[in-house]
Amino acid sequence: MEAPSTALLTDQYELTMLRAALADGTAHRRAVFEVFARRLPNGRRYGVVAGTGRLLEAIQRFRFDAETLSFLREKKIVDDTTADWLASYRFRGNIWGYAEGDCYFPGSPILVVEGTFAEAVLLETLSLSILNHDSAIASAASRMTAAAGRRPIVEMGSRRTHEEAAVAAARAAYIAGFATTSNLAAGRRYGLPTGGTSAHAFTLLFDSEKEAFIAQVGALGRSTTLLVDTFDVREAVRTAVDIAGLELGSVRIDSGDLAVLAHDVRAELDALGATETRILVSGDLDEYAIASLTAAPVDVYGVGTALVTGSGFPTAELVYKLVARSTGTQPDAPLVGVAKRSTGKPTHKGRKWARRQLEDGVAVTEVVSTQPECDLDGRQLLVPLVRAGEVVGQEPLLAARERHERSRAELPRTALQLSRGEPVIPTMYGAVEGVAGHGG
Amino acid sequence: MEAPSTALLTDQYELTMLRAALADGTAHRRAVFEVFARRLPNGRRYGVVAGTGRLLEAIQRFRFDAETLSFLREKKIVDDTTADWLASYRFRGNIWGYAEGDCYFPGSPILVVEGTFAEAVLLETLSLSILNHDSAIASAASRMTAAAGRRPIVEMGSRRTHEEAAVAAARAAYIAGFATTSNLAAGRRYGLPTGGTSAHAFTLLFDSEKEAFIAQVGALGRSTTLLVDTFDVREAVRTAVDIAGLELGSVRIDSGDLAVLAHDVRAELDALGATETRILVSGDLDEYAIASLTAAPVDVYGVGTALVTGSGFPTAELVYKLVARSTGTQPDAPLVGVAKRSTGKPTHKGRKWARRQLEDGVAVTEVVSTQPECDLDGRQLLVPLVRAGEVVGQEPLLAARERHERSRAELPRTALQLSRGEPVIPTMYGAVEGVAGHGG
Repeated sequence: MEAPSTALLTDQYELTMLRAALADGTAHRRAVFEVFARRLPNGRRYGVVAGTGRLLEAIQRFRFDAETLSFLREKKIVDDTTADWLASYRFRGNIWGYAEGDCYFPGSPILVVEGTFAEAVLLETLSLSILNHDSAIASAASRMTAAAGRRPIVEMGSRRTHEEAAVAAARAAYIAGFATTSNLAAGRRYGLPTGGTSAHAFTLLFDSEKEAFIAQVGALGRSTTLLVDTFDVREAVRTAVDIAGLELGSVRIDSGDLAVLAHDVRAELDALGATETRILVSGDLDEYAIASLTAAPVDVYGVGTALVTGSGFPTAELVYKLVARSTGTQPDAPLVGVAKRSTGKPTHKGRKWARRQLEDGVAVTEVVSTQPECDLDGRQLLVPLVRAGEVVGQEPLLAARERHERSRAELPRTALQLSRGEPVIPTMYGAVEGVAGHGG
Repeated sequence: MEAPSTALLTDQYELTMLRAALADGTAHRRAVFEVFARRLPNGRRYGVVAGTGRLLEAIQRFRFDAETLSFLREKKIVDDTTADWLASYRFRGNIWGYAEGDCYFPGSPILVVEGTFAEAVLLETLSLSILNHDSAIASAASRMTAAAGRRPIVEMGSRRTHEEAAVAAARAAYIAGFATTSNLAAGRRYGLPTGGTSAHAFTLLFDSEKEAFIAQVGALGRSTTLLVDTFDVREAVRTAVDIAGLELGSVRIDSGDLAVLAHDVRAELDALGATETRILVSGDLDEYAIASLTAAPVDVYGVGTALVTGSGFPTAELVYKLVARSTGTQPDAPLVGVAKRSTGKPTHKGRKWARRQLEDGVAVTEVVSTQPECDLDGRQLLVPLVRAGEVVGQEPLLAARERHERSRAELPRTALQLSRGEPVIPTMYGAVEGVAGHGG
């Protein structure tokens, strides 16, 4: 089955702006759009880029087929000229971006789209939808995995978000270090490791908790996770060990005072000799609740709602802004920087490059400059994603996951504080000379 | 193109519970699951059911094809018996629900799924994903349209949420009274009216604002909406009227102090004679900002982020709970009510019916009872959606939109207060006799 077109996952104005700019030829001016965040969500120390891989895939499917064009024509959204232009549309420009999984800060140009205005403006809505959602989830997820330390987190939030957003959320969580997801579509589509426990409904289906546990262990083996909080937790733990023996994989506690119950359950398991049986806790956990359970004998965290809703910030609020365009349509017309006049919402003109300055391996400044070259130490942050219309930046998801771990480890340790604060490194703008002087 | 299967938009545990329950036959017990909210988001007065139409469509696509089954088998999520059972799976039970667009309250059984445990448990994740997302959006949207009064609201939030969630959000907003959406896929898929303005990038593409306006008016006509806050708002308004004349459709203000600017722009437009030109304001509007603009000369509101993120509550936090099941697998085995033992999270046992009791046409009580019959006045709230596996509850989207308007109008007027409060009518549980006595 051919993958469906993504072309209508778009705001109408992209097409009417295109139509107006095509009519007078201005549409063919070269343009540079940048995706960036004006600020991080209130008090967050860093953001995490996610969605890049999904975006590259979606851009390849951004085509206008005959049915789509007749819909647009019938609704009088486009005229014949625009429809003809769209019929042969594919993005033929260049895209650079922060590599997926890397951290970002206010002003970081996490995506740079260069092409004609016509071809680049069309990608605004789709780019923002994907990056805003996935980066919001990954940014929240990263705080959770930081709070959990070495304890794994399993993702189980599908039911609390749109059914397709759930698949993307599982992917973003994996980039930020989650161990597994409950979402089967994410397992299939992205090769994520999947996992699951069982629900209270399962226990309630049987005439007793014991019969439910016997059925589950019989079918799924002793390494399964038994849910122990349907009736009496301590009694359930005894029943569980009675049935599964000391090889019982895990027990799950999904309600109540999780810290107290985890201690009780650990004591009960240990008293029964089930010292290897792990304790999974779940139930409205977020990064703060995870941190508060540090001293409790918890082996695995299950996180749902807080993950898929970005723990209070369901969108990264990234914007897609025209920062430069040529003064004419000839290929050699010079680029000029442009920006809306604004107080309080600074948009820096001009196409930018970015570098994370490091001192002794620790990030100190996000340098965003209109000059590509720079003699500062540090990592070049923009990588080529699309070159003359060809996707060159697709990579295995594991690369993004490993990159995130490295990128986060490179931040000052205060990045991992959960309390509100400023971005953990400052963003400095300018041409390289000025920046070098300031950074020295 | 055949619509893709929805079967893997599912938590893994639904399938492993199925496997364990199939192995010992308990899976064939009859079961009743209910979807309900334990509470409304903090301070909200009512919720709005949305997503029903999408869910009915998705249930029809909930099938396990050969490739899906080999994925599940390969990953050892299902065994051969379960895979064979899934191969012929389609839901053959019954579903009732609150009609789409109706209001709901804590405990309202907004979906009742009746079938064997096996067939009904599989629909948990998908049902919750769709209803949680769409109801969260519609519930926020309804507060916004209530705050806007007769002024239309245009939906423009696609870029701030997952690309497919955006389409569903546009649909949910329309049910709750939004006028149009910017999302073209929503226009095509659901027949929603679409609209659009233009972006700052469009103005910045040209050598001057004037040239941008000339191009836009030339291509899109005088009834277009010109964006006037790229440089100087008052100057832009003069340029706009100069170019489009007194027939200029609308101007849009997307930043700054919207109340002040709306007054300035109205004065300027009126002074120029453009008394019919409308003012559209946008820029991080939510229901509170809309209400605060009541006295400003605003004609249309544009709402984005706050809509697609549920204005602080991106999920309705609905749950899908087993409330009754039969004591055996014979067709005549009696149903018994079941519930998890719980303090503070009450789950009322037993299959329920619901009725909204009215006095003089105003809702006074949500009556949720284990008895289907009732001699109280009021509306029966559950309508048949699926009968023996056949969808019977699909309806045009306009029906849901009109129903929402009627349902909201039926609530006590305090429902429309934006300030925090209790649900505007109480939910009363019980068998009819007790409730009738209490209600009399």
